[in-house]
Amino acid sequence: MATATSANPVPDIDITLYYDAGCPYVHRVVTTLDVLSLPYKKVTVDISKPREQWYLDINPTGKVPAVIFTAQDHNNGQPTTLTESLVITQFLSDLVPGRLLPAPGGIAAAVTRARVAFFVDAWSNTVAPAQGALMGSVIRGADVSAPVEAFIKAAGEVDALLVREGAAAEVLFGDDRGLSYAQIVAAPMLLRVLALADVGLLPGELKDRLLALPEFGRWTKQALQDPVLLKSWDVPAFEVRAKAMVAKAKEEQRAAAQL
Amino acid sequence: MATATSANPVPDIDITLYYDAGCPYVHRVVTTLDVLSLPYKKVTVDISKPREQWYLDINPTGKVPAVIFTAQDHNNGQPTTLTESLVITQFLSDLVPGRLLPAPGGIAAAVTRARVAFFVDAWSNTVAPAQGALMGSVIRGADVSAPVEAFIKAAGEVDALLVREGAAAEVLFGDDRGLSYAQIVAAPMLLRVLALADVGLLPGELKDRLLALPEFGRWTKQALQDPVLLKSWDVPAFEVRAKAMVAKAKEEQRAAAQL
Repeated sequence: MATATSANPVPDIDITLYYDAGCPYVHRVVTTLDVLSLPYKKVTVDISKPREQWYLDINPTGKVPAVIFTAQDHNNGQPTTLTESLVITQFLSDLVPGRLLPAPGGIAAAVTRARVAFFVDAWSNTVAPAQGALMGSVIRGADVSAPVEAFIKAAGEVDALLVREGAAAEVLFGDDRGLSYAQIVAAPMLLRVLALADVGLLPGELKDRLLALPEFGRWTKQALQDPVLLKSWDVPAFEVRAKAMVAKAKEEQRAAAQL
Repeated sequence: MATATSANPVPDIDITLYYDAGCPYVHRVVTTLDVLSLPYKKVTVDISKPREQWYLDINPTGKVPAVIFTAQDHNNGQPTTLTESLVITQFLSDLVPGRLLPAPGGIAAAVTRARVAFFVDAWSNTVAPAQGALMGSVIRGADVSAPVEAFIKAAGEVDALLVREGAAAEVLFGDDRGLSYAQIVAAPMLLRVLALADVGLLPGELKDRLLALPEFGRWTKQALQDPVLLKSWDVPAFEVRAKAMVAKAKEEQRAAAQL
């Protein structure tokens, strides 16, 4: 029987996580499992080459993460598959209600869940695309000036939302129990952008400007020191991989210029 | 004290919906309120002209719908504002658990909520953008061939997902209690696309091809006959507005061609 730090009982469930150590979406799910003290097995999916059929049978899109779980009192003990990091994060949070999401029931819980959903939506539609474009520019060795400005602008829009939330934003910032749901969604991406600034692949002022945003900056600093988040964050491996991708892009561009 | 058809007690809550009769996002929220038998007041926001300051104070983005509620036992009786149709739909469903989203606790409820979240995500990232591009082409009087194909392709992708879900898809299709959560999210958009086909602003074969999709078609037919959904669907008004927008676009193009 699984146990948890929460006062709520944890279902008796066997979880397998399909996994890549560097992927920010996987990082969300690993962090959720660790915050909730849910035991799990890891199976690595090699995302550096085309997906093998056994994994496409699990997730036809080929994307990581996926989670397969079995539980004696669910689905006659047969396995259930879940994909998409935000869906899995919500599922796990619902399994152990009270720590990351309040158990549904009553107005306050419904409002808190709505505030979290609003943040996740704003993040996914605003910062995430800007961050994707920024990372893409770095990896292609392209000029990053415009993507940096777009990313800071998007972060500023989410910051304005957080400022507007006022006291209610505590739901999003977390509390002395550690990471919040919103931080788990956002921090894996922020870690990676800030790491690129640290190794000189992005301008250092990006970090200063991000951390200067009133709510977002405070909240990012707090998330970035969290031991549960950092446990699954391998900075040297990320740095090696990012530099190799940039070098490869530059080599390809040199080769193309000589044609 | 509010009452509901559900076995679950409904919180004592005063809801005001900021509203436009033609907007599909508003249609989601109105339908949710009606399915859950939640009483509410409507305030119309004139979206045909720039938003007035009183509404920007409620929702700085100016978008409808917004919901403001008060409840004696929440927030010291002070009003709470929620925006974004999907956030409001989730909030209302959580207020009356058991009808649209399962009541809390246990693995089965968490899985059902995850399946619904997966559908909403797939819908929002696949069909909704294709539908937006299609409606935009109609309104601008542009050639719709490519947007029609893109829309059918997107619907086909969601259909493949539904087929894969198998028996679990019952969660999404609803049951003899009427509309499901997934149908409330999707049907207001589908109604509008099919109405454009009915009045000749889109090719009639679009309707046939959509309804021929195995799961999606069955499920759309079922949703489109639902009296709660249709209660807030004014076909003649939609037709008048759509035709006026197309006529205006054609007039502008004629004027531009004579410059």
